[in-house]
Amino acid sequence: MKDVATPYEALIAHDRETQALAQIAGRLGWDQETVMPRGAAPQRAEEMGALEHVIHSRRTDPRVGEWLSAIEEGTLDEVGRAHLRHIRRSFERKTRIPAALAGELARVTSEAQGQWAKARADDDFQSFKPVLENILRLKREEAEALADGGDLYDALLEDYEPGATGAELQAMFDALRPRLVTLRDACMGAAQQPATLEGRFDERKQMKLARELARTFGYDMSHGRLDRAVHPFSSGSGLDVRITTRTSDVDPFNCFYSTIHEVGHACYEQNIDRAYLMSPLGQGVSMGVHESQSRIYENQLGRSAAFTGWLHGRMTEVFGPLSVTSPEAFFGAVNKLHPGYIRTEADEVQYNLHVMLRFDLERQMLAGNLAVADLEEAWNARFEADFGVTVDKPSNGCLQDVHWAVGLIGYFPTYSLGNVYAGCLHQALRADMPELDEKLAAGDVASVTTWLADKVQRHGGLHEPKQVIERATGAPVSVAPFLDYLEAKFGAIYRL
Amino acid sequence: MKDVATPYEALIAHDRETQALAQIAGRLGWDQETVMPRGAAPQRAEEMGALEHVIHSRRTDPRVGEWLSAIEEGTLDEVGRAHLRHIRRSFERKTRIPAALAGELARVTSEAQGQWAKARADDDFQSFKPVLENILRLKREEAEALADGGDLYDALLEDYEPGATGAELQAMFDALRPRLVTLRDACMGAAQQPATLEGRFDERKQMKLARELARTFGYDMSHGRLDRAVHPFSSGSGLDVRITTRTSDVDPFNCFYSTIHEVGHACYEQNIDRAYLMSPLGQGVSMGVHESQSRIYENQLGRSAAFTGWLHGRMTEVFGPLSVTSPEAFFGAVNKLHPGYIRTEADEVQYNLHVMLRFDLERQMLAGNLAVADLEEAWNARFEADFGVTVDKPSNGCLQDVHWAVGLIGYFPTYSLGNVYAGCLHQALRADMPELDEKLAAGDVASVTTWLADKVQRHGGLHEPKQVIERATGAPVSVAPFLDYLEAKFGAIYRL
Repeated sequence: MKDVATPYEALIAHDRETQALAQIAGRLGWDQETVMPRGAAPQRAEEMGALEHVIHSRRTDPRVGEWLSAIEEGTLDEVGRAHLRHIRRSFERKTRIPAALAGELARVTSEAQGQWAKARADDDFQSFKPVLENILRLKREEAEALADGGDLYDALLEDYEPGATGAELQAMFDALRPRLVTLRDACMGAAQQPATLEGRFDERKQMKLARELARTFGYDMSHGRLDRAVHPFSSGSGLDVRITTRTSDVDPFNCFYSTIHEVGHACYEQNIDRAYLMSPLGQGVSMGVHESQSRIYENQLGRSAAFTGWLHGRMTEVFGPLSVTSPEAFFGAVNKLHPGYIRTEADEVQYNLHVMLRFDLERQMLAGNLAVADLEEAWNARFEADFGVTVDKPSNGCLQDVHWAVGLIGYFPTYSLGNVYAGCLHQALRADMPELDEKLAAGDVASVTTWLADKVQRHGGLHEPKQVIERATGAPVSVAPFLDYLEAKFGAIYRL
Repeated sequence: MKDVATPYEALIAHDRETQALAQIAGRLGWDQETVMPRGAAPQRAEEMGALEHVIHSRRTDPRVGEWLSAIEEGTLDEVGRAHLRHIRRSFERKTRIPAALAGELARVTSEAQGQWAKARADDDFQSFKPVLENILRLKREEAEALADGGDLYDALLEDYEPGATGAELQAMFDALRPRLVTLRDACMGAAQQPATLEGRFDERKQMKLARELARTFGYDMSHGRLDRAVHPFSSGSGLDVRITTRTSDVDPFNCFYSTIHEVGHACYEQNIDRAYLMSPLGQGVSMGVHESQSRIYENQLGRSAAFTGWLHGRMTEVFGPLSVTSPEAFFGAVNKLHPGYIRTEADEVQYNLHVMLRFDLERQMLAGNLAVADLEEAWNARFEADFGVTVDKPSNGCLQDVHWAVGLIGYFPTYSLGNVYAGCLHQALRADMPELDEKLAAGDVASVTTWLADKVQRHGGLHEPKQVIERATGAPVSVAPFLDYLEAKFGAIYRL
């Protein structure tokens, strides 16, 4: 900072340091999930608490408000205005939440993670009920503080997908639902079902191939690393973006497609214009746009006939002959629909049905139309109606996801939004790159993902989320490309 | 913090959060040396800079000064008074250093680590020269701010060994030097030289045995972990104390004794009274006392005839028959004096001669009597004079240690102080535990190190450094026990 900084310069310098501290919090999160000694947990909780306290104090520092008031926006360029938009949004939201409420939410949701994990392990929703009731009460208070008389759900959504509304998402789900259900039923009822990959796959070899896949999709290992963790995730921005995956010796696809999914998130963060590093533009702009990247890498590219053909060859080289011998049958095996309780393991066709269930239930809970006491019953009834299967235990039902336990209400629909965005991007990519399938079939994915880096990723937070997609595709966002893609692909696999 | 806290309570609550942030800085340091992606260095430098800035702001917060003035020291117990002593010392020192200088030092030394590693790998002192010049300039500014007209070197020393002075250390080295040189020359000239361990030793098996050695010496793996790094180190306090070692397939002793050395440091941090966690008493009290723990673990215990007998057995089990077949000859091989450039690989007799060289050169550089441009030449000339060997390349000379690159000037002599303290503690330990050798010979080291945990480690920062040693031994600190121990041990090995 110069000795005499303009209000804009002072604001950006202050924010830059806060961004650096937030990156550190991400690094500690990675550490906790991968390398931290078991007995360090209580000390780590105190360390994280101290860091979060510092970050929150900086983000609600009254000087930020003063700088924001003093800046003459007309003097700023596009980047400057985008900086301001992000910082103003964050400041206004954080200062609306009373400090006591913010502190209690942080404490309660931090404790709830362990309580949720225990309830899930014990398959005991009753023990978790009072915890979730408390979280819901606090989140409602938070939403009321943020909404200022407006819609509570929209107010929470704003944290994950700025500009999106519950009504708009409802319309999206209404448009997705009938065609997804029809497609699902047709696939499940088809006479000829795809094969299943059988066998045991050495987990060290899986990790080696996963690293190769990550590089193949353009992940830069000199600014990242791939490790094993209980839950796959991507963490960090800019020059240090780390990913994790998991392995199971009977399910190599879990390892490989978790990796490719996280590579999508990570490439977004790695490919943002370096000029935006440590600025409010230096991260992915929303959860929905983030998920569009992970999904298009994982599904439209990674699960395409062209790429699975290449993967079939590599897996045969690495593991020896596979139980599924032809590339065509392998393409079916990778994409096979399967009944199942768990959202994160769902196939492309059914995934969004899992999300709709959560979207409807969390909106009802927040609106006060569904009591937490009735959640388990409502979940199970809805699951049976949507999937035709009776939920056997809470860990396969309403306790399967950590989201609500950590206060993430309004987060789930961004997964589906990401799928819809991925559909739009994929359509535009195919139009721009007629040779796409030849490239994928040759394992030359990185030259494909440069299209995404250029059209989407490099812009970081410069544009608003929906605008990012519309600028990249040159067309309004619509569910049609995603549904068309699914119907064509699964129609071919299942010979519908 | 209660709503109405006393000044003492307010100070301690504030300091506790600062301690938590300082632990995070340690965690990032570990990350940087073990798992950080190569290309992340510039971003990490900025992250560390932001964190150090926050920590520095908190430590120099004017409220700390107000609380310190408001506290009535007479109302405090021993622990409270020790808290106050540490916080006051830190506050007074830090408020003397301008914030901009502190920030620049943090940034520059963070970047310098990578620059040093590259220069060392390239054996190119010239590329590192401007970096070191910059660091020296900043450290001199820092020393001037701290010394307030007093001795610059003493001012820096205070950060590592409160209460010690350059003159006192000079006297210690003057007392050590003649007897060490005489002993070294006698050993090197002895008719019968110990055997050398030959062969190749699988590096994975080395790491496995290193983990066993760590546990054998009492290291708690549930609150730590052992990894490979370029430079062995210990990092963290309390419930998360991590260590590193290195491996070479022709030199397993490097791996094992680096491990045992770091275990000494780590056990000190792990064994501090849990009541002191996250308080100013929750870390080792000084570098010298710290080094006394690592040295007594490594040398007086780990390189004793009794323990090397046990290690000989374990290595034979793990690696198969060794080139050195008798435990007696193995004891000689472990302790064999060898000409060599590298301080960290030096034997017990010559180690402190390496430190003296650094002590003299860094004092000259800080005083302005030696330019960085002349460092390489001065180092090489002095090395040849002291060791009779010509330095062949900078990585074997003035680029071998990371210390100066990270701004540690005044740190080296604490290694020798640690050796002297270890000599005092070892004498007292033998007096208290006549059955010491039987225990070591049985590999029952952890029950020996509990003596150190009780006499030294658990007290953390409660007493002043020299006081810690004198309370543990019941005698004033002296170089005599250390020199007597060396002369007896090496006299026996070399049949002098």
